[in-house]
Amino acid sequence: MVEIRKPIAVRDAIKRVMDKANALPIIEIALEDSFGYILAEPIIAMHDVPSFNNSPYDGFAIRSEDSIGASGDNRIHFRVIDHIGAGQVSKHALGKYEAVRIMTGAPIPEGADAVVMLEQAVESENTFTIRKPFKQLENISLQGEDSKKGEMLIPSGTFIHPGTIALLATFGYAKVKVRKKPIVGILCTGTELLKVEDEIEPGKIRNSNGPMIEAQLKRRGIESRYYGILSDDLESCFQLVKKVLVETDCVITTGGVSVGDFDHLPEIYRRLQADVLFNKVAMRPGSVTTAAFADDKLLFGLSGNPSACFTGYELFVKPAIENMMLNNCPFTPHTKAKLTEDFLKPNPFTRFVRSVYRFEGNEAIITPAGFNKSNAVSSIARGNALIVLPGGTRNFVAGDIVDVLLLGNENGVSSWMS
Amino acid sequence: MVEIRKPIAVRDAIKRVMDKANALPIIEIALEDSFGYILAEPIIAMHDVPSFNNSPYDGFAIRSEDSIGASGDNRIHFRVIDHIGAGQVSKHALGKYEAVRIMTGAPIPEGADAVVMLEQAVESENTFTIRKPFKQLENISLQGEDSKKGEMLIPSGTFIHPGTIALLATFGYAKVKVRKKPIVGILCTGTELLKVEDEIEPGKIRNSNGPMIEAQLKRRGIESRYYGILSDDLESCFQLVKKVLVETDCVITTGGVSVGDFDHLPEIYRRLQADVLFNKVAMRPGSVTTAAFADDKLLFGLSGNPSACFTGYELFVKPAIENMMLNNCPFTPHTKAKLTEDFLKPNPFTRFVRSVYRFEGNEAIITPAGFNKSNAVSSIARGNALIVLPGGTRNFVAGDIVDVLLLGNENGVSSWMS
Repeated sequence: MVEIRKPIAVRDAIKRVMDKANALPIIEIALEDSFGYILAEPIIAMHDVPSFNNSPYDGFAIRSEDSIGASGDNRIHFRVIDHIGAGQVSKHALGKYEAVRIMTGAPIPEGADAVVMLEQAVESENTFTIRKPFKQLENISLQGEDSKKGEMLIPSGTFIHPGTIALLATFGYAKVKVRKKPIVGILCTGTELLKVEDEIEPGKIRNSNGPMIEAQLKRRGIESRYYGILSDDLESCFQLVKKVLVETDCVITTGGVSVGDFDHLPEIYRRLQADVLFNKVAMRPGSVTTAAFADDKLLFGLSGNPSACFTGYELFVKPAIENMMLNNCPFTPHTKAKLTEDFLKPNPFTRFVRSVYRFEGNEAIITPAGFNKSNAVSSIARGNALIVLPGGTRNFVAGDIVDVLLLGNENGVSSWMS
Repeated sequence: MVEIRKPIAVRDAIKRVMDKANALPIIEIALEDSFGYILAEPIIAMHDVPSFNNSPYDGFAIRSEDSIGASGDNRIHFRVIDHIGAGQVSKHALGKYEAVRIMTGAPIPEGADAVVMLEQAVESENTFTIRKPFKQLENISLQGEDSKKGEMLIPSGTFIHPGTIALLATFGYAKVKVRKKPIVGILCTGTELLKVEDEIEPGKIRNSNGPMIEAQLKRRGIESRYYGILSDDLESCFQLVKKVLVETDCVITTGGVSVGDFDHLPEIYRRLQADVLFNKVAMRPGSVTTAAFADDKLLFGLSGNPSACFTGYELFVKPAIENMMLNNCPFTPHTKAKLTEDFLKPNPFTRFVRSVYRFEGNEAIITPAGFNKSNAVSSIARGNALIVLPGGTRNFVAGDIVDVLLLGNENGVSSWMS
């Protein structure tokens, strides 16, 4: 008898894994290693930015009151009493008609309250003239105009990108509190699987899922341990999965989750006394995608079909991993886009179609990436997005607006904007 | 006298660096290390995919002609003569009313031309019945239906992402020909600069550009060497830049490119006999951004102002690095989006505004990320995009559609699609 499994909605399946994705510990790492981690503390302005009034230009710091009445016919003369670059502090306080030659970023000297840009001055040795009045604080970058001391600038739970790092550096965070990234174990099952370096044999295929998942994790900066292709023996499979569960924070298997005669994962979950969160999802490809929970860790049983495996990772593993790091934005960005070709197949289950997303002017355009069965592999290589066609629908045609999940933006475009 | 520099258009500046970005050599790397490299060979299908007719389901392989006339009232009986899993090849050729129990992915046995899914069969020991006829090739995944042997699937010059790796694995590319990634040297100039771990001092700021550029490179998987903060001494600066030019494939400096009294880079370019490609770009922030070419390598002189430095990297360094790897899509994706607030400042030069890009339904929305001067740093941490307001324009208001450069999509969203 075939085991009858009850499919659950994609949204419910996602919720179940998100609920079980336990937060990993907080660690402290060096700022230069922090790219891609999730902040475990908010960034608070430790001081005003800028921390002192400074000159945004190369020029002369003056007292604005001395410039009153300056014009082309009434040039006002200033005497240069000091010369400072960025990082230098003038020891002089300005008197009447005195100026300090000042470079971009240098602090405004005592008494000065405006800056004459070099190109606004006519210089001669140690003096210059101006021909317009300067307002108080004209050409001055004010202390605190960017950020005020004590202000919460970036919340905990934020992905650390290059701009975040610039801000952390500004406030002297040489070490940053972040959530540990999970270490993910990968095992592939299937007696049909050859290693990448093997010659092709009748009835066999090379294992593409293992390297693919390693790369999906690497794309996110997550370390994986690849445990290779499992033997067909249930007992040794069980022992290996048990070992991986100890050695890693999260286990991904590919294949073996269906109801076929050699599908060992259901039995392995039983022996682990794992809580099976779901073993059938109302989606194509990948309806056999399974998630289980044992020893406080998630086990993902992804389909052995490449497209289904890819989709299962993106839908379930990816946000669960973000949740383990307490990312406050754990989900893949989604939008809507205009379909460029008909997609007439009925969708009894929600269908995820590997696709190419691009822009034409201000219009987002989505095109299926080719051959679209669950065993497809070429379309994974071509796509950068997934069209989402809800279950119970059919007959989408060119011009329809459809939901789209945006998977990665490493693919650039061939030309600069016109 | 202030040196007068002639600004060139952003587009022309980009073209100049792209023209000088020399291709790096081809290297061969292991498949598992290939994520993020640019393919230096096309992916050609080495064999059909699938490479043999196989079953997409768990079920029974039969001869379709034996099923003619089957119905609820006229069940047809089959005898199971073999049992194969994926990876196994049946030694039996099917005779009349014979079937092979077959698991997903297993090759269709000789003589069979259709598959009865398990749930379409009523089984008893070694036999089963069907109650509908099966067409020729029903439930069979056909050899070559995904890809045909010899087909060019992915062109040279493509970014290697997880899907590309799945395809390479399928065809047995244990080693992949790619372009070497550049090693980029980073030097920061400015006597105002403190190290991240230093206590703040009057007139000084911590160096945020160095860590930020390291992270911008790391985001793209590019290795950098950080040479620290340059001293204020011209001769030692020159010697260090010369050394970095030898040790790396591309040199990025921050600060020191303006016309201020302590801006040494123009003199260093002269001493290197570098070809200065431009030293003024009609853009804000970062009009002083400079690019030069010496010893067949690019030198980028980015502004010392954080926002200007960030923008200079994204506009010029990023596509130049892609060009060194012969990426056929070297440019940052761009689109249009609806402005959510007024931006009334005039734009004598093309203005790049750090912004947050997001979707509301099928509408792309763009919001400036806050304080927006070239010395700003907090807005770099908040933004994931740049609004591009062309030179010679002014008075953009909420609701206007503006050009947008999409800088990175690591930021997820807080909820699954509704």
